[in-house]
Parts: sequence; C-alpha cells; structure tokens
Amino acid sequence: MRVGICGLGTVASGVFNLLERNAGEISRKTGTSIKVAQIGARRDHPDVNSGDTPVTRNLFDVVSNPDVDIVLELIGGTDTALELVKQAISHGKHVVTANKAMIALHGDELFSLAAEKGVQVRYEAAIAGGIPIVKAIREGLAGNEINWLAGIINGTSNFILTEMERPGLNLSFAAVLEEAQRLGYAEADPTFDVEGIDAAHKLTILSSIAFGIPLQFDAMFTEGISRITAEDIRYADELGYRIRHLGITRKSSHGIELRVHPTLIRKDEMLAQVSGVMNAVMVGSDAAGRTLYYGAGAGAGPTASSVVADIIDIVRNPTSSIPNLGFVPESLADLAICPIASISCPVYLKVLVQDRPGVMARLTSILGDHDISIESLIQKDAHGADAAIVMITDDAPEHAINEAMLEIQSLAAVRGEVMRIRVAELAE
Amino acid sequence: MRVGICGLGTVASGVFNLLERNAGEISRKTGTSIKVAQIGARRDHPDVNSGDTPVTRNLFDVVSNPDVDIVLELIGGTDTALELVKQAISHGKHVVTANKAMIALHGDELFSLAAEKGVQVRYEAAIAGGIPIVKAIREGLAGNEINWLAGIINGTSNFILTEMERPGLNLSFAAVLEEAQRLGYAEADPTFDVEGIDAAHKLTILSSIAFGIPLQFDAMFTEGISRITAEDIRYADELGYRIRHLGITRKSSHGIELRVHPTLIRKDEMLAQVSGVMNAVMVGSDAAGRTLYYGAGAGAGPTASSVVADIIDIVRNPTSSIPNLGFVPESLADLAICPIASISCPVYLKVLVQDRPGVMARLTSILGDHDISIESLIQKDAHGADAAIVMITDDAPEHAINEAMLEIQSLAAVRGEVMRIRVAELAE
Repeated sequence: MRVGICGLGTVASGVFNLLERNAGEISRKTGTSIKVAQIGARRDHPDVNSGDTPVTRNLFDVVSNPDVDIVLELIGGTDTALELVKQAISHGKHVVTANKAMIALHGDELFSLAAEKGVQVRYEAAIAGGIPIVKAIREGLAGNEINWLAGIINGTSNFILTEMERPGLNLSFAAVLEEAQRLGYAEADPTFDVEGIDAAHKLTILSSIAFGIPLQFDAMFTEGISRITAEDIRYADELGYRIRHLGITRKSSHGIELRVHPTLIRKDEMLAQVSGVMNAVMVGSDAAGRTLYYGAGAGAGPTASSVVADIIDIVRNPTSSIPNLGFVPESLADLAICPIASISCPVYLKVLVQDRPGVMARLTSILGDHDISIESLIQKDAHGADAAIVMITDDAPEHAINEAMLEIQSLAAVRGEVMRIRVAELAE
Repeated sequence: MRVGICGLGTVASGVFNLLERNAGEISRKTGTSIKVAQIGARRDHPDVNSGDTPVTRNLFDVVSNPDVDIVLELIGGTDTALELVKQAISHGKHVVTANKAMIALHGDELFSLAAEKGVQVRYEAAIAGGIPIVKAIREGLAGNEINWLAGIINGTSNFILTEMERPGLNLSFAAVLEEAQRLGYAEADPTFDVEGIDAAHKLTILSSIAFGIPLQFDAMFTEGISRITAEDIRYADELGYRIRHLGITRKSSHGIELRVHPTLIRKDEMLAQVSGVMNAVMVGSDAAGRTLYYGAGAGAGPTASSVVADIIDIVRNPTSSIPNLGFVPESLADLAICPIASISCPVYLKVLVQDRPGVMARLTSILGDHDISIESLIQKDAHGADAAIVMITDDAPEHAINEAMLEIQSLAAVRGEVMRIRVAELAE
C-alpha cells in the first residue's frame, strides 16, 4: 500500500518518521510494506528527512496521484482539509485523518461520499491521541449497548486543573495557563482548549459511535474551566472530590445528553487519577460494564501511533465493512439531544455570604423549596466578615438548580456570583 | 452468520443471552443478524431459555454442523476443547474461544491449522474479560514497537491483595481467601489464581502479541501471593507503594522477560488504583507511550462482551488478514526468554531480626558487598525483642539479591524467612 501525506506539521512529521523507524516491525505485522509515495506540504519540517520521497508544494497533487492508495489528511482546519478529503474520496482513495473538527462538523457528508465510493475514512487519531478509543468502542465493545461515556479528552485543560490541585500553592487558573503556554501545552489563544470546544468536537464523535446517532456538534452544551479557582479545588477535595473537565454523553429518558463542563468526580474514581496532559475515557456498557482507556492525548508520537494503526487496518482489511460511525448508515437513530436544562445531576454550590444570622436558614430553605436536598455542606471563613458556604446536593434537575441559584443570588447577604459545578455520578 | 455454541456454562450462557438481548443493536452495527444455529451442551443452564435453538448433548455435532459458520468454544479445559477446535478448523469454521490455557499451551498449533484452512481463531475473551486488550495491542498499537507491558490480569488475586489493604483490619491472606471463596471470587482450590498460573496463561499470550514471539508458557517465571502479609502491605504503604500481583513482560538486553509475581508499584501509578476484581494492563510503546486498559476481568457479561466482539469482527471481515498473534507467522522471532536470575529490578526486603547492636551494620554491609544500594529503609518494632528492617533497594540484579538474601538468612540474629518482593519500575 502506498500512502500520500498532506501536511508536514508536528503530526505528519511524526507519522513519516514512525513509518520509517518501524518499517521492519510494521512489515512483520502486515506481511507487506507501507511506502510513502508523496508528501504534499507548503514547507519542509526540520525533523523530517524526506530522502527520495517526492515532495510537492501543491497538496492537491497528492489526492489525485495515481500512485497513492491512502491519503493522510494531516493539515487540520476545515477548509482546505475538507476539500482535500472530498477530492481524495472522489479519486477512490482511502483517507486517514487526525482532524476532529472536520469529522465532527462534516463527518456525515464525508462518510456518505466514502460509502458511495467504497473507500474508508478513518479517524482514530482525532480523539485522545494515542488511545485506540474509536476502535475500542466501534469494535471492542460492539456487542454491548453503551449507556454512557465520560472522558478527559483535552490535555491542556487537564494539565491546568491538575496543576491547580498541587497542595499549598493556591495557583490561579491564569497563573497555570501562563505556565502551560510556556511549556507548549496551551496555545497563545487557549479558547479552543479551556472553553471546551476541542473536547466538544471529540465528544461529538464519541457520542455518535457510542449510540449510533448523526454527528451533532451544534447541540452540545459546553462550559469552560476558566472560572474554577484554587479554592473550589480545595473545597472539592475536602468533600471527597476532584475537579476534571469532562466530556459526558449518556442515554437518558429525555434523549442523549451531550455536554462538556468542569465536573466533580469522587476521588476514588479512575478518572480522578488522570493528571497532567494525559487523557482517559470511561465507557459504561451493558455487558462489559465499566471499561477505561488511558494514554497521551496529543503529541507527535501518540497521534502518529493512531494514524499508523488506521493505515495498518486498511492494509489488513481493504474491504472492511466496519461502518464509519460503527453503525450502518441506515440504522443511525435520530435520537434527540437533551437541552442542558433537562438533565439531572448532583451539583457543587459555593455561595459567598456575609456571615450574619439567618443566612444559612434562608439558603437551605430556598433549596428545600425547589426540592433540592443537601448531601454534604461545609462552611468556611472567607476574607473579612464573609463566609463561604459550600454544598454538594443530591441529584437534582438542572432547571431547579438554575431557579434556586437565581433566588440565592438575589439575597442581600450574598457576595459575588454563586458558583455551580456539576457532579458526575458514573453508573456501574 | 450462524454460530454454534459449545458449552453452556457461565460464559456461554452470557454469550447466548447477550446475542439475544442485543440482537437489534448488533444488527444496527453489522447490517446483518447473528443467529445461534446450535448449542452443544451436556446439560441445560438455568439462565438460558434456548427457545427453538437446536440443542445437542454431543458437542462434536456442533463443529461438523453445516449450518454453523463460527464455532464458539466455551467449555474450557485443554482436552475436549482442543479436539473440538481442531475439528472445527478442519471443517473450515472460524473459532472464537475464551480459553486462555488452550491458547497459551496449544495456540501455535491451532493458528497454523487455521492458517492452512483460511479461517480465523479469535480469543479476545481469553485475557482480561471485557477489556479489548488483544485488539488494542494487535491493532490499536500496531504501528508501535512495544517495549513492555504490565498487567493485573487475575481478579481473584487482586481482590485478595486489595482487601488486605483495608486500613486497620490487618487481614491475613488466609482470611481474605476464605472471604473470596464465600463471595464466589475464588475457587475451592484457589491454586490457579493465587499462584499465578491463570495470569501466566494470559501473560504468555500478551507477550507473544506484543513482541511477535511464539507462545512459551513453560518459560514463564511464576510466584504466588500467599506469602504476602498485612504487615508487608502496611510497610509498602509507608514507603509509598502498593502491592499488586503483576504479569510483566519486557524486552531487555538479555531477551524477553516473562514473569508473574507480587510486585510493589508506586502509589501514584494508575495500576496501583486498580482494586477488587478489576483488571488493567499498561502497555509501554515507542510512539503511543504508556496506554492503559481497565475493566472487569471475568464474569458472564464482560467475557460475553469480548466473545461477541470477536464474532462481530468475523462478520464484518470474514477474510481479515490480521495474523493470529498480530505478526505474520513467518515473522515470529525466536527471542530468548530470560531466566529470572538474569533480570534486574529494585526489591523490597523485609528482615526480622533480634534487636541487638551491630545487626543493621551487618545487614547493610552484606548488601554493599553485593553492590546493592538502599533506596529507603524503615525499622519497626515487631513482637518482643524483635525488629523488622524493611528496605527498598535500588535497581539490582536478581542473582545479587539472591546471594545477599542467602547470606542475610544465615545471620544468627535473623528470625524467620527473609521476604523479597520485586518492585516494578515502569518506564515512560
């Protein structure tokens, strides 16, 4: 099989070098060799010695090159990338991509074009870097009905939250973000990562392959981590929890939940052990129960690992009938995505109040009025005459929490903004 | 595709019921239906309503039944099972099995028979129950050179060790084993599980698919957990470690390490978080780095999940060219398995001594004589005039440790047996 590489950035250079370095090992595993027939890139990469591999500055040469069987789309973005992939498919070539945004936003269209042409579009590298999570869900758990999944699928925000956890340092979000930028873990404009958009792209895809639904990025609820303070992390710790930026998708009686937000998880959960830039996805399914997949979520090596795994899959099974989303297209179910207001979960509430008699009674009676019961509560001295009241509620409907928060916010004794962080209750 | 089920015990009943319960979901994923054409079982199972599925008391009917495309070997053991599988292959049928002992001991022969006949023999369910670990290694990480893997692959021994960890209870191995037997987690004769034989079967297979070597169960080093005491667990905890019964296989300059033994792991390792009957395997590879796979290692549901995943794989890719061990047979490398005496790792040493002057000096000078340096050391009062000296050494060759242990054991002040537990240093 001959591959053509579009792009020569970090990921593409990793792929080129991995194919070269492990050529022997790969041919032991496939009984054949994988040859890079052409690289299309606007510029060279310092880590790549392309040797006698033909290089073109016009990426569109690659997708029409008759010597190319599999096109690797590794330029990212959704404009040129999309056009490249469409043309590659129309030329009857298989496609392997690491492009989460393109798959999340245009996957349905691409998959139907690919089905017409009888070619494969593979995207293991789009989600959670080196973790073979797409394979695990589409194939390894294919006998199961999947009930939910929850994942740490953005290394940047996980790095920030777990750095903020470091005891005694009281690091702010802003301070750690700066550190992450210095270390190259966060972009100059960190919005995509810390506001959960990147995670939302990945979760969109995970939700589709878990439940067999069309890709619905627009229906996602997304909340970032920039409002989380070192104090929240400390209080959560005292209550037995850690805070992670989770992507959660779940079948409920209202439809499919699809949400990315900061989340409290009990400390003894495997997901709570995931720190730094690592990723992990836990899947709850009817036969296998809970399974978890953990590894590096980004970087040249891990991403290249998944791209090359996809290439090897195509080499081994060029006529594979694994549907792109794991479900045959006619069977995709148009299940409704629940609006966030219809979900129900416990929440962490932090209310800063002037420490005067009767405040606690008012607070708890507002919660009671909305049928929200309190699972645990701590009161902490804050600056001056203020106190922080921190609670974990029992399971409660989002709309009830919203209404209660509005009422609490309007109390004269309440300072600043009431903070709510949802709590994940991961079923068995 | 039509399957024939051999056996109707816990696993087989789980498979039958899963195929039935999720028939709709499975046909959404495959575009076809999977029909059970025949069950061969010496007796019925209380949880299975076979309805109008033909049942035979002669298991060999199933493997020759022309209505059967895939034979599920779910009877276990290595006598009748082996004969059934051989006959199934000779009749040109694909085979799916959960039988680790059969694959570990006879896999090479079966795979070569299957290759001649152009059929698949799949065994995801043989290792770590519901965790798709075979798929992850053979496919998901196929682009990598794998350097090592370490796994908790026996739920019984993990349950025992983590129960013994419960603070304040000081539970002995024997007491927890009894509890495990009461709960159905351990057999009446627990040897297979607690002495590491079951884990060794699984590790044999994992090692072959990681490194592309023939199955070599006989070369395995195996040590059980029955000598671990609550005290060892407490001391390990003080030193920053937990004790797990690990299967470890690793490429070293001496060849392939292949060993199952109790192991100290640093508390912050993901593997140290795995408790109860859960399983997990961590894989160290050159591109993806460390990835971990976690889930239930046994039980009807999880095992059935993996059996059905294998069936679905065959349905989707009946002509798949994934080699049985992940490497094409001609490429299997006859790498030497290192004898345990040639490995090198840090160890935990516990020496019970009469608390008199000079003992510590003798001890440490013996270690020094063998070029073994001490990483950390605690001394604890034991019963009466005795003291326990507990050390973690730096990396040291096994033969040096063995010699030092002999000398220490011969000291007049030493009571009882010197205890050695190897420490896992999991590379990045």
